[in-house]
Amino acid sequence: MSLKTKEEYLDSLRHMKKRVFIFGEEIEDYVDHPMIRPSINAIASTYELSHQPEHKELITAKSSLTGERINRFTHLFQSTDDLVKKVKMQRLLGQRTGTCFQRCVGMDGFNAVDIVTYKIDQDLGTEYNTKFRRFLENVQLEDLVVDGAMTDPKGDRRLSPSEQNELDLYLRIVDRNDDGITIRGAKLHQTGAINSHELMVMPTRALKESEQDFAVVCALPADANGIIFVFGRQASDSRRLEEGEIDVGNLQFGGHEAVVIFEDVFVPWERVFMCGECQYSGELVEIFAGYHRASYGGCKSGVGDVLIGASQAVARYQGTETAYHIKDKIVEMIHLNETIYAGGIATSYEGKETPSGTYMIDKLLANVCKLNVTRFPYEIARLAQDIAGGLLVTMPSEKDFANEEVGPLLRKYLAGVKTYPTEYRQRILRLIENITIGAGAVSYLAESMHGAGSPMAQRIMLKRLANLDQKEGLANRIAGIQKEMK
Amino acid sequence: MSLKTKEEYLDSLRHMKKRVFIFGEEIEDYVDHPMIRPSINAIASTYELSHQPEHKELITAKSSLTGERINRFTHLFQSTDDLVKKVKMQRLLGQRTGTCFQRCVGMDGFNAVDIVTYKIDQDLGTEYNTKFRRFLENVQLEDLVVDGAMTDPKGDRRLSPSEQNELDLYLRIVDRNDDGITIRGAKLHQTGAINSHELMVMPTRALKESEQDFAVVCALPADANGIIFVFGRQASDSRRLEEGEIDVGNLQFGGHEAVVIFEDVFVPWERVFMCGECQYSGELVEIFAGYHRASYGGCKSGVGDVLIGASQAVARYQGTETAYHIKDKIVEMIHLNETIYAGGIATSYEGKETPSGTYMIDKLLANVCKLNVTRFPYEIARLAQDIAGGLLVTMPSEKDFANEEVGPLLRKYLAGVKTYPTEYRQRILRLIENITIGAGAVSYLAESMHGAGSPMAQRIMLKRLANLDQKEGLANRIAGIQKEMK
Amino acid sequence: MSLKTKEEYLDSLRHMKKRVFIFGEEIEDYVDHPMIRPSINAIASTYELSHQPEHKELITAKSSLTGERINRFTHLFQSTDDLVKKVKMQRLLGQRTGTCFQRCVGMDGFNAVDIVTYKIDQDLGTEYNTKFRRFLENVQLEDLVVDGAMTDPKGDRRLSPSEQNELDLYLRIVDRNDDGITIRGAKLHQTGAINSHELMVMPTRALKESEQDFAVVCALPADANGIIFVFGRQASDSRRLEEGEIDVGNLQFGGHEAVVIFEDVFVPWERVFMCGECQYSGELVEIFAGYHRASYGGCKSGVGDVLIGASQAVARYQGTETAYHIKDKIVEMIHLNETIYAGGIATSYEGKETPSGTYMIDKLLANVCKLNVTRFPYEIARLAQDIAGGLLVTMPSEKDFANEEVGPLLRKYLAGVKTYPTEYRQRILRLIENITIGAGAVSYLAESMHGAGSPMAQRIMLKRLANLDQKEGLANRIAGIQKEMK
Amino acid sequence: MSLKTKEEYLDSLRHMKKRVFIFGEEIEDYVDHPMIRPSINAIASTYELSHQPEHKELITAKSSLTGERINRFTHLFQSTDDLVKKVKMQRLLGQRTGTCFQRCVGMDGFNAVDIVTYKIDQDLGTEYNTKFRRFLENVQLEDLVVDGAMTDPKGDRRLSPSEQNELDLYLRIVDRNDDGITIRGAKLHQTGAINSHELMVMPTRALKESEQDFAVVCALPADANGIIFVFGRQASDSRRLEEGEIDVGNLQFGGHEAVVIFEDVFVPWERVFMCGECQYSGELVEIFAGYHRASYGGCKSGVGDVLIGASQAVARYQGTETAYHIKDKIVEMIHLNETIYAGGIATSYEGKETPSGTYMIDKLLANVCKLNVTRFPYEIARLAQDIAGGLLVTMPSEKDFANEEVGPLLRKYLAGVKTYPTEYRQRILRLIENITIGAGAVSYLAESMHGAGSPMAQRIMLKRLANLDQKEGLANRIAGIQKEMK
Repeated sequence: MSLKTKEEYLDSLRHMKKRVFIFGEEIEDYVDHPMIRPSINAIASTYELSHQPEHKELITAKSSLTGERINRFTHLFQSTDDLVKKVKMQRLLGQRTGTCFQRCVGMDGFNAVDIVTYKIDQDLGTEYNTKFRRFLENVQLEDLVVDGAMTDPKGDRRLSPSEQNELDLYLRIVDRNDDGITIRGAKLHQTGAINSHELMVMPTRALKESEQDFAVVCALPADANGIIFVFGRQASDSRRLEEGEIDVGNLQFGGHEAVVIFEDVFVPWERVFMCGECQYSGELVEIFAGYHRASYGGCKSGVGDVLIGASQAVARYQGTETAYHIKDKIVEMIHLNETIYAGGIATSYEGKETPSGTYMIDKLLANVCKLNVTRFPYEIARLAQDIAGGLLVTMPSEKDFANEEVGPLLRKYLAGVKTYPTEYRQRILRLIENITIGAGAVSYLAESMHGAGSPMAQRIMLKRLANLDQKEGLANRIAGIQKEMK
Repeated sequence: MSLKTKEEYLDSLRHMKKRVFIFGEEIEDYVDHPMIRPSINAIASTYELSHQPEHKELITAKSSLTGERINRFTHLFQSTDDLVKKVKMQRLLGQRTGTCFQRCVGMDGFNAVDIVTYKIDQDLGTEYNTKFRRFLENVQLEDLVVDGAMTDPKGDRRLSPSEQNELDLYLRIVDRNDDGITIRGAKLHQTGAINSHELMVMPTRALKESEQDFAVVCALPADANGIIFVFGRQASDSRRLEEGEIDVGNLQFGGHEAVVIFEDVFVPWERVFMCGECQYSGELVEIFAGYHRASYGGCKSGVGDVLIGASQAVARYQGTETAYHIKDKIVEMIHLNETIYAGGIATSYEGKETPSGTYMIDKLLANVCKLNVTRFPYEIARLAQDIAGGLLVTMPSEKDFANEEVGPLLRKYLAGVKTYPTEYRQRILRLIENITIGAGAVSYLAESMHGAGSPMAQRIMLKRLANLDQKEGLANRIAGIQKEMK
Repeated sequence: MSLKTKEEYLDSLRHMKKRVFIFGEEIEDYVDHPMIRPSINAIASTYELSHQPEHKELITAKSSLTGERINRFTHLFQSTDDLVKKVKMQRLLGQRTGTCFQRCVGMDGFNAVDIVTYKIDQDLGTEYNTKFRRFLENVQLEDLVVDGAMTDPKGDRRLSPSEQNELDLYLRIVDRNDDGITIRGAKLHQTGAINSHELMVMPTRALKESEQDFAVVCALPADANGIIFVFGRQASDSRRLEEGEIDVGNLQFGGHEAVVIFEDVFVPWERVFMCGECQYSGELVEIFAGYHRASYGGCKSGVGDVLIGASQAVARYQGTETAYHIKDKIVEMIHLNETIYAGGIATSYEGKETPSGTYMIDKLLANVCKLNVTRFPYEIARLAQDIAGGLLVTMPSEKDFANEEVGPLLRKYLAGVKTYPTEYRQRILRLIENITIGAGAVSYLAESMHGAGSPMAQRIMLKRLANLDQKEGLANRIAGIQKEMK
Repeated sequence: MSLKTKEEYLDSLRHMKKRVFIFGEEIEDYVDHPMIRPSINAIASTYELSHQPEHKELITAKSSLTGERINRFTHLFQSTDDLVKKVKMQRLLGQRTGTCFQRCVGMDGFNAVDIVTYKIDQDLGTEYNTKFRRFLENVQLEDLVVDGAMTDPKGDRRLSPSEQNELDLYLRIVDRNDDGITIRGAKLHQTGAINSHELMVMPTRALKESEQDFAVVCALPADANGIIFVFGRQASDSRRLEEGEIDVGNLQFGGHEAVVIFEDVFVPWERVFMCGECQYSGELVEIFAGYHRASYGGCKSGVGDVLIGASQAVARYQGTETAYHIKDKIVEMIHLNETIYAGGIATSYEGKETPSGTYMIDKLLANVCKLNVTRFPYEIARLAQDIAGGLLVTMPSEKDFANEEVGPLLRKYLAGVKTYPTEYRQRILRLIENITIGAGAVSYLAESMHGAGSPMAQRIMLKRLANLDQKEGLANRIAGIQKEMK
């Protein structure tokens, strides 16, 4: 059976022996570590929902490789309908977790690698796509989480990979032999790496002829020899280490990013899907980014739903939900959130088949979608803070509420509308805090800015894809500027 | 043959004897009147392109009523593909005309009337839909332009139709007899009414039980007895009366709006599609508005393309097109314009079949689309003015350029990059002026604001359609607020 | 007596024999020409108000040169109080005219020229300042309007003055002799040139050593031999030529810009205030721009007051003024408008004395002020159009209202709240049209964008003036980054 | 001597026995508690700088009560110069601390209470002002920190104080006797209360005749019997409890807010400055809010300077500081930041003397200033996050950098431009994190939103103060709408 349960997923992680560092110490039991567990829970949702009949259509798909029912996160998109369902699945999971659920980079990576390896094979007679699909078939069968590992450290941004003071600042092949290759380097900002079964390494940018060593795509078990994970900090992260359950804001779920270091890690040829074909590197990045920029139209509108709902709830608990300006701000949040979503699904509906059979989204609209994502969540969060009121950032800790002397006083003085317990207000404010200025803001805001490329990356693509010459022709024609004049 | 040529369209208008007033005078030959002709040309484009093979797929459709190839502007949408093609057709025509092409209100009206009359017939056993489809069949066969006449004057906005000082401020039935009904009132802001063959009257808002006389849908020939058109002014409109062809900005095309007055006009029962069923009035308006709000995602992004192209062109003629900040502004214009478009097509793709078989767009997204249209064209226009430079509003008239003494001096001093004649710069600046501060700004800006409902109308719908309760539930769940606590 | 009356001003113009072209024809009686007269009326207001006791303090000042009471528009600023009063005077005049009143460029130019010529004299031992002050003394005594003529055509923007294909694209000295100099070239976008008595020519940018011929400051009577004015077009400009008084929107006032061509014009040495000192050119432009950017904080907030008032009035006439969203939009307009004003007065209050005794505004804040002016009027105008409703751009001409048959019908159907005549609505909508999409939009919007330099010019200055190093030091210190580490 | 040193301030706090709760426990040594100390350090800066000659002019003033040199934070403003210097002092302290320095509420409160008590005394023959000035004289002499305690819990926002389910939700007088009064209630969001010597209680809103018990102004020692402080949580607050000094972002400084509970606290008559005069309550709030809204123009632009500097620094360390789009974003940050500042100083310069001799700021502009503060810091923070890159939220903890195995790897892989140690990048990113998504964001963002009143409070004032009638008159006049027509 291809669909793991939530429990099977947790078990499968427990069997992996990864090297994980947090707060300066290497830890053993990363699955039950309170700092990491919320991000494991978030991925676990992708398993849990796959077994719920009402979500089956969105969360699962029929594999194009095996014909089996598989988790959509391991699927190659076979139609625009698949692309649209992906975005709807992402919105659903955003709504359920209120955070980043971390399984999209792998999914978008599969599809990008499939298209590009197919093309390389066609052009150069290699067998990368065959090997990749064999790998993916197993991923589907075992229902694995695969971290798409793309972002290199980049060092001094003015310098290309080969110009860097330290060559390892872009992950590279340091050895090749009959059995495989050895890679060295690091990938930064790895969303959800520690809760993955596999890592799929990809290059981070277009490369020059002389930079072949950086042109590598390959897959590795996340506990392969030489791989080290260092857990990244988030705002208010250590609240997870405190007793209690309210101040953390989002009770069960969270995201994480890690620095993943590859200390001369060996990869057998069977798992190498690009090795030196630097001329395809730019295209791979562009296709991956295209998919992933559309993905944000789903997940972030899902989290947006949660934040809008929380804002509406806090207004209700405080007695302001009928004030005109509050309603108007809620409407503005809805508008911005749905604009993001419209971008995601428009991008998907306008997808087209590629030679490998895998469907590609519309690149221009994907960049439009993501560029809105770099702006609107910030404004939605600002409006949420406006509605929430100052208590959002001045409320005492839940331990104070539990104190015998001041607890009752706080409940008395922080009461809102009498039909709702003060604890409702407390909880919903902590959730808004989480998403707008806490650990959740890392994924809702900063990740919206930089994930799948910073805004400038989208702007460069928009310039390139917008067919300005045609537009200029339209204008000249209407203005009566003749071709022969030109 | 159902598809008229451009010439046949012009001829057919010449056979109609409408009463048209401009500048205080009634005119005879409205077809060749220089103030009106540009708007007739714009509609003529919808005929012209229907015969061009490369546009056949967008501009024509197979009639669901007759099976014939018809102009899409007379079509009942039979699929989401039809809805998407509508938006793409609108973008194409916006690109070709650089203005409003005025045939959409009728199209969106047909589909709204079809859905609602079908429902009335089902509910009440009437035969409105049958009559309507008979009417529409003829429209398709004759390839007619039908003005959808919805917006009543409304008088004092604080008062409902029946509370107004003057009851005629909402168009109403003043008499009923065996042959038909008599209506009195006016419709304002009628986009392109004078270049239409028919008017289809619809109510403008939800109505109360006591307001049955205002609940009327019917069709009339545009030259029916008692109908008077008064042409509306636009910025710089009288440039069309000047000699020359440059200062008008958009050489061939323009839009117009008219006040249409109905002085006790008789309508035979055969052409009456709603008569007193006030309970359906609100729904009709909402469905029409839904369609029409999505339409703006198409036409305005088409005009946006022209304005972006003009901005790029003027930068080229002036030697600034490689300056970073100019490129960045062009990118911003593209981004905003495509965000509008993404809204239009997402709305269409998410359409659903209604009981009449006609497809309805997604109402929530339609309102999102239109609300962006009330903002982004203004910002795009602002950026275009930024790029254009001050000459946009300080350039002497084309007659000055034609003057023997100052003409050569102006050509000398207003020259830009030497490879382009000064006239290019002159023409393209006049086009940007037209769209951002001239006659074209009426359709690109003010119509974007108020067409298909002013922004507040969209906001009210967003609040109603966004399912806030569900969002609140999502937030409460993540915050650990139990149902039983509530 | 130094303060002319309005009538004396008009008379004085009639005595000047300027060469003025409009619509391809040279005209004689430019003072009473209906296209030009509104801009003469606007300047005339600066005379009229100088005699009204309640405005004396703002509109007049005590001359630092003669001790006489003079019009503030001819004054050298002697204190921050003078600088602030300038901005307040500009707001007042914007409120009274609803447009650009065109006398500021000269005023700001005087002060800039005073500071820089003083410096040149100090540095180089020249007598420019002495000559300039002698000239200015006469301007004050005669209460003259002086057009500050700065903006050269610039041709291909990628090329410096000396690289242009045609050297005349920057105004330059083509001959020098014992009596004076001869200049050739043109100045574009000359706000209000035709209603001026004098032109004061200034260079338009920083110049290189090899570009001495372009470094010229001098004053000429506006009817000097060889000067030609070509009137610039504005949106809806020819409404001034129509009969009637409503459609023009702003009944009395308007602005104008002209192309001013200098065909080998002779200037005696007595009126030459810079001649070849190219090293001071950049500073002169910067100081002038500084003053003038602050000026926009006054005049545009004054026009903004008119537009806000018109929006409030139209809401009242239509019965929407108590709707929450209308009130909220009015508040937003007020907020943006006052933000502009705050910039203008802050800039002035923070002014400092210069060696010449003339006070200079704060340059950083002046650029901040102007950059807001390139944005907020556009948003204020958008909100005004939102409040106004669609009739803003669809209302028939006033001649239609005067027609016997349709006039009464229009008055019936375009009636709003019954206590106000339809004509109120008609007039106030035409005023909003004027300011947001008509002739007034030229000064309220496009001039706000480009006057005193386009937005990019402000941004360059902000970068230069913001003392980023100091800010970086502040951050490093708080972050614990030690100097010695660096 | 009236000016305490930093050390004297710390000592003086140690002598006070306040009841302070944090994390559910009452603590003794609140002065050296690592959670609280940063906010004490911030206030300590106001003492430290008062002794530095270069800051003496801004930080100190000559008392109007005693003629002594006092700290400006205890000063009654005697001129617009005083008002402007206040804002400049606030900017300076924002620059030095990078956070809220918490001494402004008291200062603005003094001035508001002075004006209003003077008025009450004049009107009613009371002696409140005399008592208040006697109190203030001692504050100046002892150089005390006084927390202005205004914001009541408010409970159900739809209900007025007397309608609340629980009357204590607005602080009130529960007993009066010959010696004084007894008050009960709470004040929320008390910025910096725990580091204060005194609390000055003020009402939070306009009150009705029947709500006299809520109309109380009085001063109490912060350790008076019955006062309890509960420390409020902030994002990432517990990083202060961790070892190390980098992850906290701002090494020395921070703000805090507390819930202050008054459990039947006695206040002698000598310290009661309003007792039941509810008719002055609204005015007191309005005057206080006016001062305090202007204050934000100073402090927040100071913190903005730090954030701009940090963004410039991180760009330098990463090698992006010369990229056009980075420079452009820095410029935008500067522009927004200076717009805030311009509002603050314009408000101050336009101040006017009141009957008590104390100067009041311009209320309209103060609301404009603050309304910009509710928007621009959010956009500045968004831009800072854009420039910072993803590492802002994915960087491992400083303990990881200290680990023997992964520390060197992190330093290798997170290196930027080679001339700067990785630790620079680490420190500056933590500072940006602090201000935009950590503890500093509480003061830079959420406090900017809600401090001195939420945005809606400013909007209400703008509507009231903007003189709309006059604006309407201006518009009508220009449109030719005669008074007699009206």
